[in-house]
Amino acid sequence: MPKDVAELIALFDLDETGPSSFRGPHPQTYLQRLFGGQVLGQTLVAAARTVAPDRQIHSLNAYFLRPGANDAPLEFDVEVVRDGGTFSNRRVVTRQAGREIFMMTASFQEAEEGLDHSADMPADVAVPEASPSLREVFQRRFGASFRLIAEWDALDVRLAARPDRNEDGGSMKAWVRTRSAMPDDPVLHAAVLAYLSDMTLLSVTTVPHEVEFLSPSMQAASIDHVMWFHRPVRVDEWLLYDMISPSASHARGFATGRLFQGGQAVASCAQEGLIRVIKK
Amino acid sequence: MPKDVAELIALFDLDETGPSSFRGPHPQTYLQRLFGGQVLGQTLVAAARTVAPDRQIHSLNAYFLRPGANDAPLEFDVEVVRDGGTFSNRRVVTRQAGREIFMMTASFQEAEEGLDHSADMPADVAVPEASPSLREVFQRRFGASFRLIAEWDALDVRLAARPDRNEDGGSMKAWVRTRSAMPDDPVLHAAVLAYLSDMTLLSVTTVPHEVEFLSPSMQAASIDHVMWFHRPVRVDEWLLYDMISPSASHARGFATGRLFQGGQAVASCAQEGLIRVIKK
Repeated sequence: MPKDVAELIALFDLDETGPSSFRGPHPQTYLQRLFGGQVLGQTLVAAARTVAPDRQIHSLNAYFLRPGANDAPLEFDVEVVRDGGTFSNRRVVTRQAGREIFMMTASFQEAEEGLDHSADMPADVAVPEASPSLREVFQRRFGASFRLIAEWDALDVRLAARPDRNEDGGSMKAWVRTRSAMPDDPVLHAAVLAYLSDMTLLSVTTVPHEVEFLSPSMQAASIDHVMWFHRPVRVDEWLLYDMISPSASHARGFATGRLFQGGQAVASCAQEGLIRVIKK
Repeated sequence: MPKDVAELIALFDLDETGPSSFRGPHPQTYLQRLFGGQVLGQTLVAAARTVAPDRQIHSLNAYFLRPGANDAPLEFDVEVVRDGGTFSNRRVVTRQAGREIFMMTASFQEAEEGLDHSADMPADVAVPEASPSLREVFQRRFGASFRLIAEWDALDVRLAARPDRNEDGGSMKAWVRTRSAMPDDPVLHAAVLAYLSDMTLLSVTTVPHEVEFLSPSMQAASIDHVMWFHRPVRVDEWLLYDMISPSASHARGFATGRLFQGGQAVASCAQEGLIRVIKK
């Protein structure tokens, strides 16, 4: 995983291999599988590269089909489904070593004004400066040798409120931003937003349960990921990520999230994942 | 639109036109465009017809690409993306007169038990028997000649709580079920659930605003629709549909919904739609 922002940015610098096909770099990592957020963000960039720059991503939905490996580049094939009067739709197939590992559909829109409202940003949180980093939290829980989150060093992630079980099922709130400034490219900010939105979301689905999300008895994998981009966003400024898990059933956990910045919802997302407790 | 449950069921009886292609009937209606919920439900059935019957739909995501017409059948082409150990993925393109009007990806799963929790079912609602039908509500507002909802006569839809603006943005709660009993086929129940989930969802996005969703100055159209099926459901028994709209911006309204039955979340869904106020 990227150890700083420069490496994170480099992840989204795709090579053009055809009129609507691209190849993406894979990072140096000791993780066994490709991080889903990387596939998500890179595929978003591939789709965006085929769309007029005055049309911005406003939504995407995607399925993770097979685990990705860390030793081969990703190949993105973008299909131009429709370029309408104000909206553009794309369908993307992401392959590794010739096998489809991921599929995404996405929609882009020309700038337009209209009705405006936002859910309230949660007020029951600590400020980022008073919130413990996720690395500290995990190292306290799993010991100083815990390294998974240390790999995400391009991002500063802090626990804004104690994970809890409430009327929404499970709940967790985090502050997140990149560790240093990013260039102004809105596609890059959207890609990093997608990347970071995949980091903690599925773990909320086990908050109401005794079992630890990161325990060896848990087989966890993202199944899908959907996302709506409501407003312009800067991922190098603090985002409050408000996550809940309204349901788990049949070995699947479901979680939804809202990302707030400057008091307004800038994005919403949802994910279902496999959360299978392995019988020993 | 179907005027009774028999017509509603007939809508989902697709003809097989090839190894993984199907044709769907279109209903008698005076609506100018095809109802999105019909396209959604029929496309779900097409996908399910290519999957082993012991694997049930657990999620779908879809984009509406072009308005559908009411005078031509729908053609569904299903692509078998993957049949894995316990999950199956399908990609479907829905065409009318040769043009792609809709695309869906869907995932099916073999029965499996696991961790289980659900968000609480909202308690601040009137019982169905004490809730006014949506038809009454609209006829009071728009006059006795108002017929749009009268077309949805296969369903009994009642307003369970007054539409309101709260910390979640806009909010609306409805009871819904079919007017008479349905056969036991779980695919049919899932299809009708998808159908009915598209009925009132987008209208919640204008609840925080002065403008009427159904007014002639509003150009409204579904852009996408995503859905997760958490637990077995019967659409001929009361469902509580809890809808909120966490955001509207850039002429797009975003709404999410939870469907409850027997005190548990049986499905979640989300939709973004165009809500363009036409300047006169």
